[in-house]
Parts: sequence; structure tokens; C-alpha cells
Amino acid sequence: MDIQKFMIETKNDVDQWLEQLLPAAGEVPETIHKAMRHSVFAGGKRVRPVMVVAAGESLDGNRKTLLYLGACIEMIHTYSLIHDDLPALDNDDLRRGVPTCHKVFGEAMAILAGDALLTRSFQLLADLPQVSEGTRLDIIREISGAAGTIDGMIGGQVVDLESEAKPINHEVLEYIHRSKTGALLTACLRCGALAAGADPDQLQALTSYGRKTGLVFQIMDDILDVTSSSEQLGKTAGKDEKVKKATYPALHGIEASRDKARELVLSAISDIEILGTPAEPLRSLARFVFSRSA
Amino acid sequence: MDIQKFMIETKNDVDQWLEQLLPAAGEVPETIHKAMRHSVFAGGKRVRPVMVVAAGESLDGNRKTLLYLGACIEMIHTYSLIHDDLPALDNDDLRRGVPTCHKVFGEAMAILAGDALLTRSFQLLADLPQVSEGTRLDIIREISGAAGTIDGMIGGQVVDLESEAKPINHEVLEYIHRSKTGALLTACLRCGALAAGADPDQLQALTSYGRKTGLVFQIMDDILDVTSSSEQLGKTAGKDEKVKKATYPALHGIEASRDKARELVLSAISDIEILGTPAEPLRSLARFVFSRSA
Repeated sequence: MDIQKFMIETKNDVDQWLEQLLPAAGEVPETIHKAMRHSVFAGGKRVRPVMVVAAGESLDGNRKTLLYLGACIEMIHTYSLIHDDLPALDNDDLRRGVPTCHKVFGEAMAILAGDALLTRSFQLLADLPQVSEGTRLDIIREISGAAGTIDGMIGGQVVDLESEAKPINHEVLEYIHRSKTGALLTACLRCGALAAGADPDQLQALTSYGRKTGLVFQIMDDILDVTSSSEQLGKTAGKDEKVKKATYPALHGIEASRDKARELVLSAISDIEILGTPAEPLRSLARFVFSRSA
Repeated sequence: MDIQKFMIETKNDVDQWLEQLLPAAGEVPETIHKAMRHSVFAGGKRVRPVMVVAAGESLDGNRKTLLYLGACIEMIHTYSLIHDDLPALDNDDLRRGVPTCHKVFGEAMAILAGDALLTRSFQLLADLPQVSEGTRLDIIREISGAAGTIDGMIGGQVVDLESEAKPINHEVLEYIHRSKTGALLTACLRCGALAAGADPDQLQALTSYGRKTGLVFQIMDDILDVTSSSEQLGKTAGKDEKVKKATYPALHGIEASRDKARELVLSAISDIEILGTPAEPLRSLARFVFSRSA
């Protein structure tokens, strides 16, 4: 299984869908469409769409549907990055190695570009091709829940902000990780599965895999913030410690964090045993998330 | 037709649905849910839900469905107010007579509260009661389009921001009005109609009524900004002129603006003649939008 090849091919295909599904840069009003495209096409490995495609293809799902779905989720992920980077939140100047949306287009436009990506994503999901109306609604429910305030992305971001510069315990840290990054990553697996017509056992297996892989992703992100340079990361490094942010390595140390992540990867791989050979990309992806260097 | 009574009753019913459909203030993480509720329950006449209900009931639609739908659209309207009020955009301290979201909860929480209301609305629309799956998707398409960048709410806001302190022509002003306020108001009429199973002629009549009433609404808003005190408006008055904002009265004068609005009201009322007596609330509403004092 050449996971690098799978990832690059999927990224290229998703990028073509993003190109097609986002309003053209020349469409009026141009500034907002340029701002949306600036952040969507600022690089990134498209981990979420890759997860959608790997999950859906493990159940013989339609690749076109999965790529379109992956592009929609990537828009939501990008909206969250644009808003998180704002001066009122994380105040980041760099993301994926390029200036953040508000640095290029100003704060007002960055706020609106985030809003627009979120809105556009739901608009597109209503037309997700080659699945039933019921499945489209199931997927809208999944994604809006995962992006929301209750155990979702916004909820995680709120608790993360409120936990800065104060001691937090293990439960709060797990809540932040599970909600802020984990929920949307898990939704990638679940939505890919739903789009491919998963049965309840398959959906459960992919959900469990998603939760564990999502946590690994966040733990590794936190470790990389400590151990990498800004150049390697493509964003400001060492920022978590500077603002005394709640992180896995801050609470447990780097080695224990890495051990925990390794254990989760093995468990995630074992969760999807029932899916057989077609799930091979998912197994490689879990290992990749653990071993990635940036 | 006692339109005041109709509006108050509908507002009260919508408020009960909002109470039920928004996460409780005690739900974790509490701050974001308090911030969402602060702005949703900061007053307001619920003009958009009232339009949804009046349109749907003119076609004998289910009141429960229409109130739920109205509550969802009110969440999107409130998200747009929260973000528009931010320091990076209109920088308003007061809205509907109470401090704006960012004045009470800080900028970060206000950005996230807006995001959360938008997300929650789509989550709820996927479960719109007592309509078919196809109709739910139609409504999600309508609302996301009306809230979006192409001839939608965000697009109008972008052009509005870019037009501050520079001369604009009539076409640009019409674009701003049609997109920023008009699109979502028209969507209220169209979604109320779709939820009630409108035929194409009925949908067309309500769409045309909605476009005209939406423009009246914006013209009157602009006139009120010039002629009222902050106390009467519940928000900072005279602000448009101060920032040299593109408005109808700035371009055409107050009297010509009022004449234009009067003409549009008569035309909107004539558009819905085919709907007969059940559309009486809509006729009164068009007159109300024209005559409102704040």
C-alpha cells in the first residue's frame, strides 16, 4: 500500500473539485471569493477529504460522491482555520506557510470569508451527487453536529480559549481534543461510510477508528508544536507553550504522549479489521498520522 | 386584519421555538450558549419568522413547521447581526437597545457565537418537521443561497463594506439592498411557500412580493437611520452618514426614497392578488414595513 501515492492522488482530485465547487475568483463580489480561495488553496494535505475517500472506498463507495463530500468538509475545516487565526482568537500570521486570510484581506473580509465557506459547504451538501435525499440529510446532520457547540468543533474551540493560561485536568484536555479536532475527523469517516451505504457494524467500526485517529492527530499536532520550527510547521511554532495552552505534552510529557498515540493507532487499526483488504488505506493513514513530521 | 396582534402572537410562538431549539444556557460549554441566547433574545420583532408564517399560512401550511422554520431563519439573521456588529465590521456597541454580543462576551466569543448560530440553523433544518426530505433539501438550498456570497447576504455585506466613504451609483446600491437584506427576506417568503407545498405560480407571486418588500424594508431602515434618535432605533443612529455609507436617502433624498417605497408596497400587494383572503396578513405586513417607526 503506497499511502503517499494514495494521498497525493486524492489531494489532486479533491483540489479539482474545490476548484469547481468554489465561486470563481472573478465572480462578483471578487474580494470575498479571492479571500475564500486564498485560504482553501494555501496548501495542506487534505487529510479530511483523504479520510472521507478512504472510508467510503473501503465500502466500495462512488469516488465522485466522496471527492465532492471531501471538498465540502475541507471548506468547513478551512473556515474554522480562518476564524481561529483571527487576532481576537489565536492571532496567527502564518498558516500552511502563507500569510493568514486576515493578514492579506483584512479582518472584516476574513470573518466573512469564513462565514461564506461554511454557508457554501451546506449549500453544496444539499446537492451531494449520486446519493439519496435521506443520505444527504444524514450527512448534513453529521457535519453540522460535528462543527457545532455540543461536543463539536466550536465547543472545543471555546473550551480551548477559556483554558488558556490556567491549569486544566485530563478530562478537559480530552474534551478539547475530542471536540475541536476529533469531531470533524470522525465525521469524515462516518460521512464517507454513509455515502457508501454502510451497515451499522461498518459505521460503528469506522466511527471508533475515527475517534482514535482524531485523537492521535491532535496529540501529534501538539508534539510538533513543541519539537518543530516555524519553518517546518508552516505556522508559528512554540505558540502553545507561550500562551500556556492546554496540550497533551504539556500535561503528560512528550514521551508519554507519543506512547499514548502509538497505542491508539494500533487500537484504531484493530477496530476496522472487519472491513478487510479495501480498508488498507485507512490502516496506512492511521500510521501516517502518527509518524508525520509536520 | 389586526396585524399588530398577528405579529405579537407569531413573535411569541417563534420565541418559544427558539427557546426550545437553541442549546440551553446551562449546556456545556456555557459561555457560547449564553452568547448565542444573548443576541437571539435581545429583542426584535421577528420580522423574518413573521414573513415565513404569513407566507406559509396564506397557502394553508402547517403552523408548527413554519414556526420551526422561522426560528431557524432568525438564527441566521442573528448570526449576521453579531458578525456585522464586530469592531472589524460596523463596530456597533448597541443593537435592539442592548449591548452587542462582543461588548458583553468579547470578540472571540462573538465570532464563535455567530458561527454557532449559522451551524445550528442548518443542523435544525435537516430535521424540519412534517415536510418531505426533498422539501427540506429545497429549503436548505434556498437559505444557504440567500445567505451566501453570490447575490446573497454575505455578498451584499462585502459590497457595502467596500462602498463606504466612496461615491456609488444606483446599480451598486440596488445590489447591496437586494443582496444584504433582500435575499434572506425573499427566502423567508419562498421557504414558507415551499414548506406549504406552493405551486409554481404561488411561489412566483410570493417571490416577487418578497423582493419588493425586502427593498422597502431596507429603504425604510436607511431613512430611519437619518430621522431617528439612537434611543428610538435601539442602535446607534446617524451612523450611515457618519461613515458615508451608501444608502437610498443619501443617493435620492428622503422624500424620493419614501415615494419609491410606497410604490413598491402597492406593487408587492398587487403581486399576491392570486392568493386571495388568506394572504391578508402579507398585505398588512407590506404596509407595516413601510410605516414602521423603528
